[in-house]
Amino acid sequence: MSNDEPQVSQETSAVAPLTARDPTEGEISEAGPPSEVTRFALGDTWMTLSHDERQEGFRQLSRLEAEELFLGMGAADQLEIVLGLPREERRAWIRLLPPDDVADVVQLAAVEEKERLLGLLDDPARREVNALLAYAEDAAGGLMNTRYARLRPEMRVDEAIRYLRKQAREYLETIYYVYVLDDAQHLLGVVTFRELFKARSKHLVKDVMRSQIVTVREDEDQEAVSRVFAQQGLNAIPVVDAEGRIKGIVTIDDIVDVVEEEATEDIQKYGGMEALDAPYLKVAFSNMVKKRAGWLAALFLGEMLTATAMAYFEDEIARAVVLALFVPLIISSGGNSGSQASTLVIRAMALGEVRLRDAWRVARREIGAGLVLGLVLGSIGWLRIVVWQALRPTYGQHYMLVAFTVFGSLIGVVMFGTIAGSLLPFLLRRLGFDPASASAPFVATLVDVTGLVIYFTVASTILHGTLL
Amino acid sequence: MSNDEPQVSQETSAVAPLTARDPTEGEISEAGPPSEVTRFALGDTWMTLSHDERQEGFRQLSRLEAEELFLGMGAADQLEIVLGLPREERRAWIRLLPPDDVADVVQLAAVEEKERLLGLLDDPARREVNALLAYAEDAAGGLMNTRYARLRPEMRVDEAIRYLRKQAREYLETIYYVYVLDDAQHLLGVVTFRELFKARSKHLVKDVMRSQIVTVREDEDQEAVSRVFAQQGLNAIPVVDAEGRIKGIVTIDDIVDVVEEEATEDIQKYGGMEALDAPYLKVAFSNMVKKRAGWLAALFLGEMLTATAMAYFEDEIARAVVLALFVPLIISSGGNSGSQASTLVIRAMALGEVRLRDAWRVARREIGAGLVLGLVLGSIGWLRIVVWQALRPTYGQHYMLVAFTVFGSLIGVVMFGTIAGSLLPFLLRRLGFDPASASAPFVATLVDVTGLVIYFTVASTILHGTLL
Repeated sequence: MSNDEPQVSQETSAVAPLTARDPTEGEISEAGPPSEVTRFALGDTWMTLSHDERQEGFRQLSRLEAEELFLGMGAADQLEIVLGLPREERRAWIRLLPPDDVADVVQLAAVEEKERLLGLLDDPARREVNALLAYAEDAAGGLMNTRYARLRPEMRVDEAIRYLRKQAREYLETIYYVYVLDDAQHLLGVVTFRELFKARSKHLVKDVMRSQIVTVREDEDQEAVSRVFAQQGLNAIPVVDAEGRIKGIVTIDDIVDVVEEEATEDIQKYGGMEALDAPYLKVAFSNMVKKRAGWLAALFLGEMLTATAMAYFEDEIARAVVLALFVPLIISSGGNSGSQASTLVIRAMALGEVRLRDAWRVARREIGAGLVLGLVLGSIGWLRIVVWQALRPTYGQHYMLVAFTVFGSLIGVVMFGTIAGSLLPFLLRRLGFDPASASAPFVATLVDVTGLVIYFTVASTILHGTLL
Repeated sequence: MSNDEPQVSQETSAVAPLTARDPTEGEISEAGPPSEVTRFALGDTWMTLSHDERQEGFRQLSRLEAEELFLGMGAADQLEIVLGLPREERRAWIRLLPPDDVADVVQLAAVEEKERLLGLLDDPARREVNALLAYAEDAAGGLMNTRYARLRPEMRVDEAIRYLRKQAREYLETIYYVYVLDDAQHLLGVVTFRELFKARSKHLVKDVMRSQIVTVREDEDQEAVSRVFAQQGLNAIPVVDAEGRIKGIVTIDDIVDVVEEEATEDIQKYGGMEALDAPYLKVAFSNMVKKRAGWLAALFLGEMLTATAMAYFEDEIARAVVLALFVPLIISSGGNSGSQASTLVIRAMALGEVRLRDAWRVARREIGAGLVLGLVLGSIGWLRIVVWQALRPTYGQHYMLVAFTVFGSLIGVVMFGTIAGSLLPFLLRRLGFDPASASAPFVATLVDVTGLVIYFTVASTILHGTLL
């Protein structure tokens, strides 16, 4: 049996191409090892290759290998490959793709390329692609495909299986779910292929189908669609119009991309910039800098208020320079605790765990958390000043008052940071903005200004008559 | 036909349960509307309900409805439901679940509950669950299920379809892919169900199967597995051991959960805390505060260096209090630009777009970006001082020198922030830590200390002989 043992490529641990040997011949079947390795290796390193390296690698594959790689790619890579090919070769490649994938590719193309790409399709395919292009890219209609399996309710199970076999031959994307429609395309029921397979031949489709169906509307946002998938544990969901007519299906493999994409957008917004909408190493330098400079400048303008606040307390600083020493420590503690709180709330909102009406529940939790965290940091800060002073006097004769100023300010600033960080996402959502814009830098900026006011107010109160 | 038109529930826009009416009876079929609505409504609000509200709602559903809801839930919710039921009812519910789902539920149970739950299973199921429990929860082996469709290479296509029909009746999770195995469970090939359906009846399975198969190893990390799915565009991937024997399959619906989960972990680490590993409103208060306090205290200790740095420049501040005014503005600009850079790099690493060997490419990009962004912020800062001074003299006779100090410092601080933020994730990965720990607060803390040194050094140089 040793002849029969699959070879596991050592090149990558994640993708191990297995090559089965035909026991009767003892030889490797199909395309032969060199190009096999190349296809997996190429796919694996694709992200990090330059445009020229990709075209070069792609041309070195056998036709079959190249097609497999091409079909597994994302739309941006497919577009890059097609545009990199000589004009006369493009048609064969674009026609390899199913209509919904063509729509995604055309969507990404430059305006002047769009018509030219559509011109490469045959008439029915072009009509279908044009219909899909009418939907917003991030709506259910823009995610769906129309190659679903369909049956009539009055068919017998054995007829239905024969009919599906014919559909499978022609166009299906998936036969996991089979949809039962009336003459006007109204969705009457769904049956999994497995259930159909298990059913008695003589039964009617309408007797084995389920008539309670989870659907999404064609204009539903893709993030909401992905939440329906997560909640319901389905592999495909039909997309219907307002009259309950089926327009297509969204399959779960498209949802994986949506989830990745939405998380990336949220994370980038969360990092204090506009979402890049493209891989980091691919996006043009000028474009990237523009997306970062906008937010950075906005935050800078907000942060200028700290200079105004500091100027307001200039006299206090001049009289007690020791106060200035703790400014960065105090305001950054507010920023850090606010950043934690806003991250938690933003992610919980994105996952549907927390809704607008939970604002007060969250606020109560965060007031408690802020108090505990403030006490922890305040105690560390107090200890630091007292211990330092004991080791090497730095903070003057009123060091104990300074220590209590820092202790009190930290509690106030951390509590304010926690509350502001947790409620800002609710406020943004309420006002119709994306809660993910309550980024760590945004919260930090907000808290910095307030933190200064809290700090100097506490200082004025405690140090009045001594240092101030 | 109006009788035939599906009803679309208005209650939720995402999940619209369609109820088909039987045209011959003109009546609603199956369980009747009240409990139908409840199941979808319950699923939709699940996250925000208390434990008691959930048990209550669950008990109000019809058996069929409750089973559907239960099967679509995540493991944590399934565990909660099962443990909330009277002891004598638990067995029927746990046995509803396929072995891989049972394994997930048992994984989450408290130690003393695990054995009791396993005791509810029949012997073969318990053996299978125990085998799955041996894998790490976040490895391919922990994600897989063993209910895949299997064939022998020498079967004829029509025999194969009959044989699959039998398997479908008994245990299959998915029949999308069918795996071809030898006697020793070595994976020889794969054929999609659709291809089998399209093939001529007399052909042999080995003639229609593909022998090049994307596989993952049983100990592969789930994040790597999800990247293979993304790259290859597959719906299921077989899991094999070192000898190429199939152990199970991972299906794409499990990957959606993995992608969500990994993104949540990254986002929470990125917000400067440990990952919570549970929904925000569900995690115990003490547990949440502990996970936040650890990082917050660590950052606070790091940030204490700012007080040390400030103390070092205390004389300069005393002589030119005006310098203190811009401290928050300058250091926060470094933190914000560093936060942007580290977010971009961490996410690009998580998506596999950027690897360790790209460090220098990223560094070159970020040096350029830092310079441009520093020039932008520096110019705004310079302008601010000059304009303010013209409107209302605040900054003294040497305001122009102060303006240039701020200009120069901002360029230095923003560049340092950008470079540190982009390279810290590489450093962490190189040292074997999770790059997502290069959080916004971590980067900000690092940059705050350095930013102070840069600022006061620039100030000493420019203001020497005038203010200092």
